[in-house]
Amino acid sequence: MKNILLASTSTLYKDSYLNYLMEPLEAFFAASEQICFIPYARPGGVSYDDYTAKVSEVFKKIDKEVRGIHTYDSSEEAILSADAVFVGGGNTFVLLNTLYQYNLLPALRDRIFEGMPYLGTSAGSNLCGITMQTTNDMPIVYPPSFKTLGVVPFNINPHYLDPPPHLEHMGETRETRIQEFHTYHNLPVVGLREGSWLHVQKEEITLHGIPSARIFEQGKPAYEIASGSKIDYF
Amino acid sequence: MKNILLASTSTLYKDSYLNYLMEPLEAFFAASEQICFIPYARPGGVSYDDYTAKVSEVFKKIDKEVRGIHTYDSSEEAILSADAVFVGGGNTFVLLNTLYQYNLLPALRDRIFEGMPYLGTSAGSNLCGITMQTTNDMPIVYPPSFKTLGVVPFNINPHYLDPPPHLEHMGETRETRIQEFHTYHNLPVVGLREGSWLHVQKEEITLHGIPSARIFEQGKPAYEIASGSKIDYF
Repeated sequence: MKNILLASTSTLYKDSYLNYLMEPLEAFFAASEQICFIPYARPGGVSYDDYTAKVSEVFKKIDKEVRGIHTYDSSEEAILSADAVFVGGGNTFVLLNTLYQYNLLPALRDRIFEGMPYLGTSAGSNLCGITMQTTNDMPIVYPPSFKTLGVVPFNINPHYLDPPPHLEHMGETRETRIQEFHTYHNLPVVGLREGSWLHVQKEEITLHGIPSARIFEQGKPAYEIASGSKIDYF
Repeated sequence: MKNILLASTSTLYKDSYLNYLMEPLEAFFAASEQICFIPYARPGGVSYDDYTAKVSEVFKKIDKEVRGIHTYDSSEEAILSADAVFVGGGNTFVLLNTLYQYNLLPALRDRIFEGMPYLGTSAGSNLCGITMQTTNDMPIVYPPSFKTLGVVPFNINPHYLDPPPHLEHMGETRETRIQEFHTYHNLPVVGLREGSWLHVQKEEITLHGIPSARIFEQGKPAYEIASGSKIDYF
């Protein structure tokens, strides 16, 4: 019954917030009047109100009302009664820590399994994997666990980035970091490049958007899958 | 009494391991016969033996014997009796987690305050800050705390990287990430670019090497300090 849309990023280069996704989002949220927005990832430390206002503005274009979870008396009730949920990007450590603090993961997971539409971008996409251990974010807060919703059977690396052609910097590439992850874990990792997203319908997971995605499995060389591919082999 | 050398990186572009640091390291380790090497950060999941062999090979050039901490019966005894310690780079989460697992932080901290020479590169430099919360690494393991040795009065961001001139990628820049850290913490952060290092002698901290360093303080615009500068204002 799942209906999940997980995007690598909210914003493409030189484009406006969520603009490249508006057409698929109109279809995705067709049956939802109101969207409950979870602003906890707070990109750049933005306030919940400001972040929600930005999202609200954009969703007016497709006639959807947006309400921030922080404006409800009970954040758990907000999730339990939501038509749909959108978890925006920012810092994944901050996002997950706040969700643990308010004990919202069980309610969110239940609603996703019931088929409530869930949209995630960046940190919000990371949240649907098994753990947040393939995030790119800085550990600016210490969450009680790295375990996430586990509503897809793999981890996600959003904003997946190929090594630049003339890399003079000796820090690890993204691929090296994910390979390090695989020295400790056997979970597959989907490297989602900007401009692509996953759509999970019931148990079918399809890659959409322009770039291909890079798949990392423990003990195998990384490989590419094209837009339109189904991920049904893990 | 501290005597600490903290480098942003072990290896410069197109150069060999530690090569750019050999001259300062010869002076730094002048009074040390043997160096106890801590390979726990395991870059790319390398074995402790292989990582130690690589370090050992390089230190032969300046007639220093290197022994891996994992070859001692007691890792704590290894630190307590060491002439000097070198903590190599890799994954900071893995490094810190292993040090907590063996309860080695108190011994290491005591020896550093006694004046035992400590060399860190990358993750090994991060370890000397107050917390590891300005690391660039992926959280591939879950350490019991993000608290590190706290032998310098700030956090370190190794491999500090300026935004590339034509950034088409929408993930956060390093500066944005550090600013996000400052929405939760008031610790200063020293962004150490590759090719530069800090030398801590007693309570005097000096920046060495070729590039300038970028300093981030909560509530202030980031600023540069030149090589040769003292950091005595936090």
